[in-house]
Amino acid sequence: MVEHRGLDIMSTPSSSSPSSSNAEKKLFSKLKVSLTKKYPQKNAETLSAQYGANLLLIGVSVMLALAQHGPAVKKEHLLAFITALMLVQLVWMLCYMIQSERERSPVPEKDAHAGTSWIQGGLTMLALLSLIMDAFRIGSFVGYHSCVSAVLGVYPVVHALHTISQVHFLWFHIKDVIKKYETFERFGVIHAVFTNLLLWCNGVMSEAEHFLNNHRRRLTALGYDNVSTVEAEPNCNCSISVCSMFSTSLYYLYPFNIEYHIFVSAMLLVMWKNIGRTLELHSNSKRPSMRSPGLLLGPLLGLLALASSVTVLVVYLIHIEKSQQTREAAISMFYLYGVVMLSCMCVASGAGLLVYRLEAWPMDTGSNPSRTLDTELLLGSSLGSWLMSWCSVVAVAAAGPGSPSFRWTCLVYSLLLVLEKCVQNLFIVESLYRRRTDPDDAPVPEVFSITPAPVVPPYDGIVNRGYETQDKGCATLEGETPENRAAFSRKHSDVTLPVGNQLSVIHGRKRQILKNITIFLFMCNISLWILPAFGCRPQYDSGLEQETFGYSVWTTVLNLAIPMNLFYRTHSVASLFEVFRKD
Amino acid sequence: MVEHRGLDIMSTPSSSSPSSSNAEKKLFSKLKVSLTKKYPQKNAETLSAQYGANLLLIGVSVMLALAQHGPAVKKEHLLAFITALMLVQLVWMLCYMIQSERERSPVPEKDAHAGTSWIQGGLTMLALLSLIMDAFRIGSFVGYHSCVSAVLGVYPVVHALHTISQVHFLWFHIKDVIKKYETFERFGVIHAVFTNLLLWCNGVMSEAEHFLNNHRRRLTALGYDNVSTVEAEPNCNCSISVCSMFSTSLYYLYPFNIEYHIFVSAMLLVMWKNIGRTLELHSNSKRPSMRSPGLLLGPLLGLLALASSVTVLVVYLIHIEKSQQTREAAISMFYLYGVVMLSCMCVASGAGLLVYRLEAWPMDTGSNPSRTLDTELLLGSSLGSWLMSWCSVVAVAAAGPGSPSFRWTCLVYSLLLVLEKCVQNLFIVESLYRRRTDPDDAPVPEVFSITPAPVVPPYDGIVNRGYETQDKGCATLEGETPENRAAFSRKHSDVTLPVGNQLSVIHGRKRQILKNITIFLFMCNISLWILPAFGCRPQYDSGLEQETFGYSVWTTVLNLAIPMNLFYRTHSVASLFEVFRKD
Repeated sequence: MVEHRGLDIMSTPSSSSPSSSNAEKKLFSKLKVSLTKKYPQKNAETLSAQYGANLLLIGVSVMLALAQHGPAVKKEHLLAFITALMLVQLVWMLCYMIQSERERSPVPEKDAHAGTSWIQGGLTMLALLSLIMDAFRIGSFVGYHSCVSAVLGVYPVVHALHTISQVHFLWFHIKDVIKKYETFERFGVIHAVFTNLLLWCNGVMSEAEHFLNNHRRRLTALGYDNVSTVEAEPNCNCSISVCSMFSTSLYYLYPFNIEYHIFVSAMLLVMWKNIGRTLELHSNSKRPSMRSPGLLLGPLLGLLALASSVTVLVVYLIHIEKSQQTREAAISMFYLYGVVMLSCMCVASGAGLLVYRLEAWPMDTGSNPSRTLDTELLLGSSLGSWLMSWCSVVAVAAAGPGSPSFRWTCLVYSLLLVLEKCVQNLFIVESLYRRRTDPDDAPVPEVFSITPAPVVPPYDGIVNRGYETQDKGCATLEGETPENRAAFSRKHSDVTLPVGNQLSVIHGRKRQILKNITIFLFMCNISLWILPAFGCRPQYDSGLEQETFGYSVWTTVLNLAIPMNLFYRTHSVASLFEVFRKD
Repeated sequence: MVEHRGLDIMSTPSSSSPSSSNAEKKLFSKLKVSLTKKYPQKNAETLSAQYGANLLLIGVSVMLALAQHGPAVKKEHLLAFITALMLVQLVWMLCYMIQSERERSPVPEKDAHAGTSWIQGGLTMLALLSLIMDAFRIGSFVGYHSCVSAVLGVYPVVHALHTISQVHFLWFHIKDVIKKYETFERFGVIHAVFTNLLLWCNGVMSEAEHFLNNHRRRLTALGYDNVSTVEAEPNCNCSISVCSMFSTSLYYLYPFNIEYHIFVSAMLLVMWKNIGRTLELHSNSKRPSMRSPGLLLGPLLGLLALASSVTVLVVYLIHIEKSQQTREAAISMFYLYGVVMLSCMCVASGAGLLVYRLEAWPMDTGSNPSRTLDTELLLGSSLGSWLMSWCSVVAVAAAGPGSPSFRWTCLVYSLLLVLEKCVQNLFIVESLYRRRTDPDDAPVPEVFSITPAPVVPPYDGIVNRGYETQDKGCATLEGETPENRAAFSRKHSDVTLPVGNQLSVIHGRKRQILKNITIFLFMCNISLWILPAFGCRPQYDSGLEQETFGYSVWTTVLNLAIPMNLFYRTHSVASLFEVFRKD
C-alpha cells in the first residue's frame, strides 16, 4: 500500500500563485467547483440514512400522540402525512423509470441476488390482497362519506396507486445497481424504504388497536374488566348495506398488508446498499434450478404441522370466548401443541447442523448485501420474541400457588421458543453461507477420476488482482482468512484419486436430508405465522404475565414483540425457501 | 476468481471405499472428528451473539417485572443475577490473563485502533468514581445491615472487584487480536460485553426511578399531583450517622458509573469483532502526536459554552423547585440557551464540512472495526433524541391557545436539535474517514519541487496483492471505487511542479480551522452532557408534551431517549477527541 502514501501528498491543492490574496481567490473558486462535485459516498449514505430515520420518527411521534386519543391529533393527520410521503415516492419512481427508459445502457448492471423471481411472485400476491383491502376501504368511505374526513377516501386511492406502481417498479428495477445521480437516487430509494416502514408501523398499530379492543370487549363480557372501548366508529349510519362486511374483512387482510410493506422495505434497503457498488462478475451468475428427488418425509410432516395448526387456531378461537374453564383448556392446548411443534423444529434444525458438521464444505464469502441483511434481520427480529419468552419465564417463576394450571407448560414452551429460534437461526445462517456444492452444477467429482490434473492451476499464494475492480474488496468479509486458504490447499493435496460413484451417492443423500429438513421447517414457520396473525395470542388471554408485569408494561412488550415475531416467521420462510432452492 | 471454482470441487469428501456399510462407518468416524474440529467463524459469531442477547433479555425482563413493584420480584433477585454474571466474567478474565501470560508469543498481534491510551485514561477515571460509589454502597449497607438482604452487601463488593480487574484487563488486553481457542474466547468476550450492558441498564433504571420520584415529590409539593412515591427505603434506622450523605452522593455519581459501563461494552465489542481477524500491517502503524499551534478561538468559545451551561444548570435547579412562574421562566431560559448553543454548533459543524468540500482529500478505507462501530453508534444513539424532538414538535403543533409561553422556543429548540445532530454526525463521520494529511508526517510537498519524479512508481493499474492477507478485503468497503482511483491518477498528472510554500500555509490554515472547530464542538458536547446528567430535564417539567402524549407514554419515551442522548453526547466527545488527535 506504499503507493497510496505517495498519492496522498499529491492530493494537496496544486495551485501555487505567488501572492496570498490571489491564492484566496483561487480558494473561493475552488470551493464553488467542490460544492458542485460529487459528494463522497460515505457522507451521502449517512445523510440519506438520517433523512429516512427522521421521516419514520415523525410518523412514529404522531402515532404515539394518536394512541392517547386526545382531541388535537387525529387519525386524519397521520394519514395525510403518509399520503404525502407516498405521493413523493410515486413522483420519484416515475422520474426514475422515465430516466432509465431513456438512458438504457446495453447491458445494465444487475444484482442477481436482490429479489429473486419467486420473492417477486410472493410480493405480487401480497400486493393483490392489499389492493382488495384498499377496495374495501374505499367502499367503507363511500358508505360513511357524509360524516368522515375526505382524507379517509384519498388515502386508499393513493395507496392503491402506490401499490400498483411499486410492484411494477420492483419487478423491473429492484436488481438495478445505480451508478448515475447517485446522491439523488439514494434519497429516492431511502424515502421509499422508510415510507414502506411507516406504512408497516401504521398497519401494526391499527391491528394492535383492533385486537386490544376485541380483547377488552371479551374481558368485559366475562366480567373481568369494565373499561369502555375506544373504537373509532363514525358517527353516522352507513348508506350502503355491506359496510359491516367491509370492516370485518379488513382485519383478515391486515396481516398480508403488513407483511407486504415490511418485505418491500427490506428489498428496497438492499437496492439502497447496492447504489454505487461494483459487482464481481462471478457472484452474478445465475444457476438453473433443478429437480429434487426423494422429497417425501419433510413435506409430509410439514403438511401435518400445517393442518394441525389450522385446527388449533379454529378450536382456540371458538373456546377462548367461552367460560373460564374452556378458556384455560384452550390455552393449555395451545401451549402443548407449541411444545410438540417446537421440539420437532429443534430436532430438525439440530440434525441439519449435524449434517453440515459432517462436511467441511467451504463457506461462501462473496459480497452479497442481500444475504448480510437476511442474517441481520433474522437475528434482530428474534429479539422481540426472546424478550417475550423471558418475561413469561419470569412470570412463571414469580407466580404464586393460585396461578393457572398451564404455567409449567408455558415455561417449557417459552424456553423451547428461545432454543428453537437459536438453533434455526444457526441452521439458516450456515445454509446461506455455504457454497453450493451440487454435482450437477460444477464438473462432477467423477471427472477427477479420469483427469487427475486439476482444471485450474494450483493456488500458489499469488493472485494478481490488479485488473480486478477495487470495490469488490468488501466481498471478502470474514471467511477468507489465510487459515481458510490453508484449508483449501490442504484439501487440494488431499484429493486421493480416483473418487468413486459412492461419493456422489453419499453426497446426494446428505443433500436429500437437508432438503427435507428445510421444507419441514418452511412449513412449520408458516404454521407458526398463521396462529398469531389470525388472532391466536394466548399471551394476551392467559393473564399469567399480566399479574407480574401489569397491564401497560405487558401490553407494550406484546405490541412490540408480536409484530417482530410475525416478521421473523415470514422472513425465515423466505430464507428457508432461498436455502431450499440453493442447496 | 476462477481458481475458487476449482477448489470448490475438491472440497467434496475424499473417502472412496467400495462397500456402502464401510462408507457409513467412515461417515460416523468423520462426524466425530468434525464435531471436535474448529467451528466456522460465522456460526460461532451467531451463536455467541445469541447467547449474549439472551443474557441481556433475561435481565431486562426481570427489570420490567421490578418496575411493577409487585411482591414476587425484588431488587435482590436482579442484583443476585448480575452478581453471578460478574463472577463468571471475573473467572473468564482470570483464565484469559493466566493463559496469555503463559503462552506469550514474541510479537502478539494488536489492533492499534482499539482503545487508545487517552480513552483508557478516561475510563480509569470513570472507574475510580464507580469505586467511590461502591464504597458508599457498602457504607450504606453497613448502616442498614440489620434489615436489608445480604445481596445488597455482596453486590458492591463484587462490583468493586469486577471494576478493578476489568480496568486491568482493558489496560493490557483490549488491543489483543485473539487467534487461539477462538470459540471459547468469543463467548467470554461477548459475556463481558453484555454483562456491562446489563449493568448499564440497571444504572439507567435506578437513575430514572430516582429522578421520577424526585419529580413526583416536587409536583406533589406544588399541588399538581398526589401520587405517593414508591422509594425503596429500608424499614429500619441507620446505625451510622452518614447514611443520608451516602444516599445523596450516590445520585451524583450515577452518571459516571452509567457512562463507564456503556463505554466498556463498546470497547469489548470491538475486541469481539477483532477475534480471528488478520490485521493489515500498514493500518497498524502508530503516529506520534504533534503540537497544534493557533488554537485560540475554539477553546475560548468552548470554555464560554461550558461556563454558561454550568450557570444554566445551577439557576435551573434552584428555580424549578419554586412557584409556577419561576418554573416557566427557568424552562424558557433553558430553551433559549439551547437555541443559541445549538445554532453555534450547527454553524461550526457546517463550516467544518465546507472546509472538507474545499479539498479532495481521499477517504481512508482501511479495515477498522472500531471506526465502523463508532459511526453506527453515533447514528443509532441519535435516534432516541430525534424521537423526543419530533414528539415535542407534535406536542407544540397540537397545543391549544392556553399553553405555556415557551412553546415556540421549544419548537425552535427541537428542530435545531435534530439539525445539529445531523450536521455533527456528518462532520464526525467525514473526519473519521478522511486520510491524515499532515505535512509533518509524510514528506512535505516542497520535496516535490526539488525532485520532480514521484517517490513511488506511478499507479499503473496493477497491484500485486498475492502476498497480502486476504482478510483485509473487508477494508475496502466503499471508497475505493475505480472512479476514486481515476481521481487519484488525475490528481497525479495534475501536479504542476514546483509547488511552493504557499500551499503548506493554506493547508496549515485549514487544519487550524478544523482543529478549532473540533475543540469547540468537543466542549459543547460536554456541556450538553452535563445538563441532563445532573438533573436539568425540562422535558419532564414543562408538561407541554405530557398533555398530548399522556404521562405513561411520554415517560416511556423519555426513559428511552434520555439515556440514549447521554450516551450520544459522551460518544461524540470521544469521537471528536479522536478527530482532534488525528487531524
